[in-house]
Amino acid sequence: MAVSPLALVHEGGTTRIWLGATALTDAASEVALWLAGRRVFVISSAAVRELHREALEGLMGTAAEVVELNVADGENAKTMSTVERLAREMVVAGGKRDSRVITLGGGTVSDVGGFAAGCFLRGIEYGQVPTTLLAQVDASIGGKTGVNLPEAKNSVGLFHQPRWVVSDARFLSTLPARELRQAMFEVVKVGILADPVLFELVESSLADLLTAAPETLARAVERAVSVKVAMVAADEREGDRRRLLNLGHTLGHALETVVGHGRLRHGDAVGHGMLFATTLAEARGLASEDADRIRALLGRLGMAQLPSLKMAPILEAIRRDKKARESGLAWVLPLAIGRAEIADISELTVEKHLASFLKDCLE
Amino acid sequence: MAVSPLALVHEGGTTRIWLGATALTDAASEVALWLAGRRVFVISSAAVRELHREALEGLMGTAAEVVELNVADGENAKTMSTVERLAREMVVAGGKRDSRVITLGGGTVSDVGGFAAGCFLRGIEYGQVPTTLLAQVDASIGGKTGVNLPEAKNSVGLFHQPRWVVSDARFLSTLPARELRQAMFEVVKVGILADPVLFELVESSLADLLTAAPETLARAVERAVSVKVAMVAADEREGDRRRLLNLGHTLGHALETVVGHGRLRHGDAVGHGMLFATTLAEARGLASEDADRIRALLGRLGMAQLPSLKMAPILEAIRRDKKARESGLAWVLPLAIGRAEIADISELTVEKHLASFLKDCLE
Repeated sequence: MAVSPLALVHEGGTTRIWLGATALTDAASEVALWLAGRRVFVISSAAVRELHREALEGLMGTAAEVVELNVADGENAKTMSTVERLAREMVVAGGKRDSRVITLGGGTVSDVGGFAAGCFLRGIEYGQVPTTLLAQVDASIGGKTGVNLPEAKNSVGLFHQPRWVVSDARFLSTLPARELRQAMFEVVKVGILADPVLFELVESSLADLLTAAPETLARAVERAVSVKVAMVAADEREGDRRRLLNLGHTLGHALETVVGHGRLRHGDAVGHGMLFATTLAEARGLASEDADRIRALLGRLGMAQLPSLKMAPILEAIRRDKKARESGLAWVLPLAIGRAEIADISELTVEKHLASFLKDCLE
Repeated sequence: MAVSPLALVHEGGTTRIWLGATALTDAASEVALWLAGRRVFVISSAAVRELHREALEGLMGTAAEVVELNVADGENAKTMSTVERLAREMVVAGGKRDSRVITLGGGTVSDVGGFAAGCFLRGIEYGQVPTTLLAQVDASIGGKTGVNLPEAKNSVGLFHQPRWVVSDARFLSTLPARELRQAMFEVVKVGILADPVLFELVESSLADLLTAAPETLARAVERAVSVKVAMVAADEREGDRRRLLNLGHTLGHALETVVGHGRLRHGDAVGHGMLFATTLAEARGLASEDADRIRALLGRLGMAQLPSLKMAPILEAIRRDKKARESGLAWVLPLAIGRAEIADISELTVEKHLASFLKDCLE
């Protein structure tokens, strides 16, 4: 029996999201209708395309023509030049306003491919097939697309919601353990913020999750995506509700800036950030029992150790980050496992707690 | 007494449009509020900026900081590289989500500057100060932004509606007569489509209009803009209503393609296109009296003569244009002065009429 998709209702319509181990099959008939008689551009990296070509073929049967467009793996491909090249290839291949785009791959492909779809002929429809755990629980939900400038990440782009997302759990079996671990910080974050059942699922099944046990992973993805869909639908353009998703990111971003994006991965950085947010929250009344459970789970997940650091540049990066968000977002703090708030905390208090939090690596 | 602006209601809110000889003054207090305490990027060409610096200064008083960004004059500046450069300059100058953009100039500046505003940090608000007649009656209404690819004009961009438009009639006094004449084809087009009073105004005051007599020109702009606002509001994303604005463009585009954009200007091409649409319409029942009035007015406006042409490439270009619009738009035809329809006409009929229409220049 086919499973019904989730529906994310937004300004421009509805995004249908298929999850689980039979997502591709479940979505096939609706995607076929959407593609019928159209030219479709499948944007992917060569490696991902080879890996999943067979799985995707079932979706493509009704398209008038399938055109493959390549994007290199990795953050370096997220540039305006890539968007321009994709658009030129789409023009040359006869792309029109009723042509379709499908992005197949991780966050890079959906960010840059979604942006290309959003500005080609002033916007054509697209669907997403995220093949990494992080893309399934993060990049594919919310319609954020974009590329980097040399001066700033994700600084050019669009809100362009896909018409559908197919997050098939079978894709995840090919992922290396280190990718699963990085993405799991995102899953734990959603549990802390809004879903105690998801938090417990990770607590009780961490080993299974990190070895990509299909059913457990599918359940975790389904819960994480459901929570995000609710948060994004309530608040498409980043009001307070959606901002809760920045738990762990205030210190996390500062650490990435100071240590260097190449040397500290995003998941690890957010892990440290969530640990610190827990410390701040405990000082404001978060029950020690909850704080201990968060610390224990993050400890089992295991963050990469921080190198030797100086306090001043970290505070400076936090200050700049806050200034960049003119609305003054400061700290997202857990109130309990499954609930969080946005709190304004003085710099002095932050510095005091940070000094003790980082004591083992401060120079 | 301040004049109330027009309001164009669209998906994302309302665009307020100030027209007439005191538009800048009338808009000043609302624009001041919109700018208060913000960083504003004024995108313009160096020449236009110098010409209108003083006029604009009255608008800028409340901004926290005014940053000037340059775009070269002319179609060649409408590229992805220009958008990327503008975005980088905005990042470097501290642009944030609550920063503002103002475009000051003709169609190029509003197309490329509006696109930059629409994708910088996934979209920030902008206002338009169109300084050419064509931009006042065309580019500034409807939220179309974009750039060219080497393979196709306006093929990358966004619908991004400005928050406000200030079309001050005083700007038009500095325009050369040849620019006014090109833009007047657009005004006549709107008259034929939807506004008999505007058509009569051009009939009775063509000489004044072509010498930029301020009050007459202001009245023509106001009527043309009002009609377009109604059409765009009814149909933001190019359904049939908005497509009526393509009167004269089916043959016009084909002539531009065959003769070359550099050798035949857009206004002239659309003029020839409208003349031909009138011929087709007459064969389907448009009253000869109306057809004659249209021909007479276009004749007085005077289109650049067409060079020697071959039939086959023109038909081919029309065919390609039709294919590119997958919804199959073919011909917009006047039903009377002030009313038009979209008609599907067989290629054979078109060819027959075109052979006679172009007989003086066919090889």
